[in-house]
Amino acid sequence: MLSARNQLAAVVKSIKLGNVMAEVVVEVAGTEIVAVITRGSAEALKLQPGDHVKAVIKSTEVLIDKS
Amino acid sequence: MLSARNQLAAVVKSIKLGNVMAEVVVEVAGTEIVAVITRGSAEALKLQPGDHVKAVIKSTEVLIDKS
Amino acid sequence: MLSARNQLAAVVKSIKLGNVMAEVVVEVAGTEIVAVITRGSAEALKLQPGDHVKAVIKSTEVLIDKS
Amino acid sequence: MLSARNQLAAVVKSIKLGNVMAEVVVEVAGTEIVAVITRGSAEALKLQPGDHVKAVIKSTEVLIDKS
Amino acid sequence: MLSARNQLAAVVKSIKLGNVMAEVVVEVAGTEIVAVITRGSAEALKLQPGDHVKAVIKSTEVLIDKS
Amino acid sequence: MLSARNQLAAVVKSIKLGNVMAEVVVEVAGTEIVAVITRGSAEALKLQPGDHVKAVIKSTEVLIDKS
Repeated sequence: MLSARNQLAAVVKSIKLGNVMAEVVVEVAGTEIVAVITRGSAEALKLQPGDHVKAVIKSTEVLIDKS
Repeated sequence: MLSARNQLAAVVKSIKLGNVMAEVVVEVAGTEIVAVITRGSAEALKLQPGDHVKAVIKSTEVLIDKS
Repeated sequence: MLSARNQLAAVVKSIKLGNVMAEVVVEVAGTEIVAVITRGSAEALKLQPGDHVKAVIKSTEVLIDKS
Repeated sequence: MLSARNQLAAVVKSIKLGNVMAEVVVEVAGTEIVAVITRGSAEALKLQPGDHVKAVIKSTEVLIDKS
Repeated sequence: MLSARNQLAAVVKSIKLGNVMAEVVVEVAGTEIVAVITRGSAEALKLQPGDHVKAVIKSTEVLIDKS
Repeated sequence: MLSARNQLAAVVKSIKLGNVMAEVVVEVAGTEIVAVITRGSAEALKLQPGDHVKAVIKSTEVLIDKS
């Protein structure tokens, strides 16, 4: 069990590989979330569109914007 | 327009104030997300349950967990 | 109004695009600050040298170094 | 030499101690920057108003906001 | 399997609870590492001294200091 | 003295340069740790395998995983 307070069920939509980093777009409850991880992690996880994953976000990394 | 790729429409459910930090629970598409911001920010934004806000998350802060 | 405590008026000096990430150098009160955002964000914001922007930094991301 | 791209000369203006965290306000080129560090760090550094320090920020933690 | 590149086997040494945050000291290969998580997470994980855990760190959060 | 609570003695094992970012693998007490910094920082530090460095991690960036 991971201490991160935010662990959102997600489906991978696309992966874009750079030399060092990779951009992973996932869908969470109808909304797209973008994650940037290392290319090495994307390959180690063998991420592919359609994969069921969790998007994990530590609560200290979330900002609030109030109009 | 903010560079953060993830800006999720949310409603504030609860705010818990500490001396320095504050924990803000919001609801995004039926899912709870927890944000930790400074108490000073929570007060400056006058955050209250029911407020319509955005939860903002930089893409480099999102991890992917694949079972 | 964004909860981030640090929102510094800045002018874009240069943008360097990678495949996934982009490095944006801005000037804040005579000092350079470097931001790394996604290439996608740099393009969505149509960032160009001379743009007036804000450099936004969550307070939990700032370290203090005392000699 | 630290890899962080942003190391800004600063003067401590105030310190507010919580049980676990501490909020440190510093002045950088006429602008206030807020840092949240652990209370343990604030005590280990013996931070006091008037201290000359550097505010250190990793470039991946900087967002850009363009109106 | 979590995308975070750094997942270090650790033993909990102490936990200090604040109102909102908690400081968890763990030992990794003879070295202490300090984690700050929410008090809510520390309680949900029922963290106690002696617990075998992993300290998880996203690679984008690691700085390099070269003397 | 840096406020970051985690400053681990490390030896550089490899550096992989992208256009914007660089992945630096270091060894800490027999364990590999991966850092992602900007290519500009890797070049400014003239990082090379065998370099003695410190891996620096702010405590708010550490998650705890308990099985």
